Amino acid sequence: MIPRLARWLPILDWGRHYDRATFGSDLLAAVIVTIMLIPQSLAYALLAGLPPEAGLYASILPILLYTLLGSSRVLAVGPVAVVSLMTAATIGQVAEAGTAGYATAALTLAFLSGAILLAMGALRLGFLANFLSHPVVAGFISASGILIAASQIGTLTGLKAEGHGLPHQLASLAGQVGQVNLPTLLIGAASLGFLFWVRRGLKPLLRRAGLGPRLADMVTKAGPVFAILATSLAVWSLDLGAQGVAVVGAVPQSLPPFTLPSFDLALLQDLILPAALIALIGFVESVSVGQTLAAKRRQRIDPDQELVALGAANLGASVTGGFPVTGGFARSVVNFDAGAQTPAAGAFTALGLALAALYLTPFIAFLPKATLAATIVVAVLSLVDLSILKRAFTYSRADFAAVAATMAVTLLAGVEAGVSAGVLLSLLLHLLRTARPHVAEVGLVPGTEHFRNIHRFDVETDPAILTLRVDESLYFANTRHLEDLILARVPGDGALRHVILMCSAVNEIDLSALETLESLDERLRDMGVTLHLSEVKGPVMDRLRRTDFLTHLSGRVFVSQFEGWCKLTGRCTAGDPQRHARPIAPVPATP
Amino acid sequence: MIPRLARWLPILDWGRHYDRATFGSDLLAAVIVTIMLIPQSLAYALLAGLPPEAGLYASILPILLYTLLGSSRVLAVGPVAVVSLMTAATIGQVAEAGTAGYATAALTLAFLSGAILLAMGALRLGFLANFLSHPVVAGFISASGILIAASQIGTLTGLKAEGHGLPHQLASLAGQVGQVNLPTLLIGAASLGFLFWVRRGLKPLLRRAGLGPRLADMVTKAGPVFAILATSLAVWSLDLGAQGVAVVGAVPQSLPPFTLPSFDLALLQDLILPAALIALIGFVESVSVGQTLAAKRRQRIDPDQELVALGAANLGASVTGGFPVTGGFARSVVNFDAGAQTPAAGAFTALGLALAALYLTPFIAFLPKATLAATIVVAVLSLVDLSILKRAFTYSRADFAAVAATMAVTLLAGVEAGVSAGVLLSLLLHLLRTARPHVAEVGLVPGTEHFRNIHRFDVETDPAILTLRVDESLYFANTRHLEDLILARVPGDGALRHVILMCSAVNEIDLSALETLESLDERLRDMGVTLHLSEVKGPVMDRLRRTDFLTHLSGRVFVSQFEGWCKLTGRCTAGDPQRHARPIAPVPATP
Repeated sequence: MIPRLARWLPILDWGRHYDRATFGSDLLAAVIVTIMLIPQSLAYALLAGLPPEAGLYASILPILLYTLLGSSRVLAVGPVAVVSLMTAATIGQVAEAGTAGYATAALTLAFLSGAILLAMGALRLGFLANFLSHPVVAGFISASGILIAASQIGTLTGLKAEGHGLPHQLASLAGQVGQVNLPTLLIGAASLGFLFWVRRGLKPLLRRAGLGPRLADMVTKAGPVFAILATSLAVWSLDLGAQGVAVVGAVPQSLPPFTLPSFDLALLQDLILPAALIALIGFVESVSVGQTLAAKRRQRIDPDQELVALGAANLGASVTGGFPVTGGFARSVVNFDAGAQTPAAGAFTALGLALAALYLTPFIAFLPKATLAATIVVAVLSLVDLSILKRAFTYSRADFAAVAATMAVTLLAGVEAGVSAGVLLSLLLHLLRTARPHVAEVGLVPGTEHFRNIHRFDVETDPAILTLRVDESLYFANTRHLEDLILARVPGDGALRHVILMCSAVNEIDLSALETLESLDERLRDMGVTLHLSEVKGPVMDRLRRTDFLTHLSGRVFVSQFEGWCKLTGRCTAGDPQRHARPIAPVPATP
Repeated sequence: MIPRLARWLPILDWGRHYDRATFGSDLLAAVIVTIMLIPQSLAYALLAGLPPEAGLYASILPILLYTLLGSSRVLAVGPVAVVSLMTAATIGQVAEAGTAGYATAALTLAFLSGAILLAMGALRLGFLANFLSHPVVAGFISASGILIAASQIGTLTGLKAEGHGLPHQLASLAGQVGQVNLPTLLIGAASLGFLFWVRRGLKPLLRRAGLGPRLADMVTKAGPVFAILATSLAVWSLDLGAQGVAVVGAVPQSLPPFTLPSFDLALLQDLILPAALIALIGFVESVSVGQTLAAKRRQRIDPDQELVALGAANLGASVTGGFPVTGGFARSVVNFDAGAQTPAAGAFTALGLALAALYLTPFIAFLPKATLAATIVVAVLSLVDLSILKRAFTYSRADFAAVAATMAVTLLAGVEAGVSAGVLLSLLLHLLRTARPHVAEVGLVPGTEHFRNIHRFDVETDPAILTLRVDESLYFANTRHLEDLILARVPGDGALRHVILMCSAVNEIDLSALETLESLDERLRDMGVTLHLSEVKGPVMDRLRRTDFLTHLSGRVFVSQFEGWCKLTGRCTAGDPQRHARPIAPVPATP
């Protein structure tokens, strides 16, 4: 009973072994993650076009729900860069930033994403995420990082980018270059410089100054907090707000409010497709992080359970003033490195963020938005990794086309178009490849029972026998091509008597292909040639046995290619695989 | 030079050998086909919602153009049932039947279909037709036959069907049952009964009466002409037109007129997608017929050249008052059976139809539309073949789902939705199947070098070695699933030392799968297990060699599974395939 229930409520599993040492590790990790999350949450809310406190709210209840339901021990859930960007892109289409309608649309988007994730979890559709190939995901994340960094140029300079797509926005910024707000630019540039230096230079310095590695790490993680304090202080003391520096302003001092998404049908229709895409992208990002970290500790995560947990987290965000959330890479790695042992670390983080929402919010009224923009830029530039382009280019044209199209379309036409283009193109290229399969003529490798391509290996052949190894399942998309290809290799001359189709790579023969094989058999028979099959796999054979194909086939079905070769040439004797290779169990029905 | 040009103008090939005997055969076939085509052309124009003479016009220039360009010797091009139905369904959306706008839309549809076919031919995209699987095409044609037959009920009874989709139309007819026009019903029922009898009963009767088989056949083919003459005479002599029997009425007596399609952008946008679908369906129907007939005479047809010829035929239809055309099953079979030897038979048929358009049209003013409807019903019911449902059901769930969905959606929501649903569903099911591949644990069949599934065959295994044969290419859609599956089969116990992935069925390893293999190798190494590959195919190996995967792999790549087995168990010696199996040619670059 317990194991069954624990599958749905993993807390029942790890909660039973919870002890004081684990508590200590979890608490320490939570403190570090909280310090890192406060500025990051504010910044991602800004990126999503929402008031900064929405970022804190979106981190509290969602983390708690993930703690209860999630199958990863260390995943940290909350607003993340790519999903925040997608949220802004989607809601910008249906509402004006800063209005109540905008905030409601964000809640509704979180609600729909959550509902979609829960439904996918209930239907055990976690494998659907697999249709996003690694190159497409890598290209999408890199291009999103560039888009996000570019989107912060306006905030870093006090300008406002206009237009749709990266080129237009950059052009509009270039046109306004004379109107840059100097104090804003100074704050932005100083924060950026400081944060990059913290990333690269501070830690080695602290280690040389004699700090322990863990403490040095903690101080480094707190870098954004220093930047926030220093720039807020500068704005307050020099009254920079009066000189045009945009600040966060008054933020309510409260726990997350109770909110409701909109159930307006027109709005739901507008948001349903983007919500599905956000759910899918968020799920893939989260599962990738979760799997990577779980593997390091020899743990496993359950993708279908992750769907449920992330779905609940998004529903939680939608009723507490938040916006779409998922498991984030940076925060999860920090949590892992800081030594979090169980999801309880997440619960403590939620507590820390709740305290921040209650008591720290008055202190961020003077926080310049440019400082938050700088933290975003530093965070997302680490996502940009163009090496995937080179790797894909070296490896295969199809992978390169998928990653290049994803990046180009994301940069030029936006995130939704980009990821859709990548997925569709990779599926299409896969189908086109299987539609024109590789077919090798094979012969016997001397001294073995092994058959390989006659153009690659020095093999034995026989003029009376043509053996073709088809390197693909036979299905509707390639069956006509295959028939042409085989007939083209069968000359009308007198020597050839047998064609063997070696089916070791044929994982399916569908009804279209079966009909093609029947007509191929007839046409070869008319030419005085017998058609045989060899090495047909169990599941494929099961299906052929349900038809009358095997009784009509002019030739035979050989268990091994070598057996067929020996029987037809008479040059050798195969250990009789027909005799030894008797089925030992009733053949299971494979529909 | 000649062979090259003859590829594009097949007439240069067969025209050089044209002689008197061939001329005789072709002429006789043309006479028979012309007699059959006159009523059929009129009827299909009616089905497409156009004036009857459009059917004759659509058969003249298109046939001539196909004669010049087509690669099939016997294909007869013109209006066919399914394409006429699709034409009516498409144009009904943008214009009122009987108006000038309707006729122009039909010309425009033919023009767009022709342009699409020509473009596909120029790009050599003939293989795209393969994505329509046999079951989808069979289901679509059967369902279209039912739809067409049902659409004629109104004409056969003098009623008018309302609404969209088969159920609505049948219900609206049932509601009007009291208003049936009795003379129309009598003519319709008599024609139907007569035509069915001609199909089934007349030929045996004629043979018993002593007629030769060819003559009996010709008389039978002329059945619809008798029906037309008899019912026209009845309408004229009894003045049935005054009693509400709808007749064809005045038809202009002329050669095909010169017409132009519309280049209105809004109309082109409305028609472009249906035109693509009509082009594709028409192409598939035509190529299927062409291939079947060519095979009977050991001839070949060239699908890419067929695209060009059918494209030209449709452009021809659009400038001579026609509508979309393609190679028809019934007319081509008649042409073949009547002994047509070359496409010249088509040219003679075109001549016959031109004479009919000039001199016979006055005689069809009194022809009742119900008679034409009866010829349509008799023709299309022969297309309906429900046995594909049973055959697909027995063979595989995926094929059955595709054919059932195609038929159901075609009947309920129309032809375009039906064929789109069938294509998408069959692609989706194929992708889902490859996303969860079959993986078999294999062992050595005693006395051979052959490895088979341990659950199906009585084979040798070794506790230190786990050999898994993955029955699918490794690509992004299945790579995560596969990693889970392999890790689940590797217990953490002490006996297992080696995992061999037998790659005989792996036709591709894409970049996502490569990354998965790398992480799998690492995780197995952490568990003290070595990962090997065996029987990696040439093109896959070429690609792996371009990466550093092979240098990092913990185990080896064995040319044959048996070699790997012998090396790892030490129980046998394989004839050294590494030595014999040396590449004999520089390995070609396979991108």
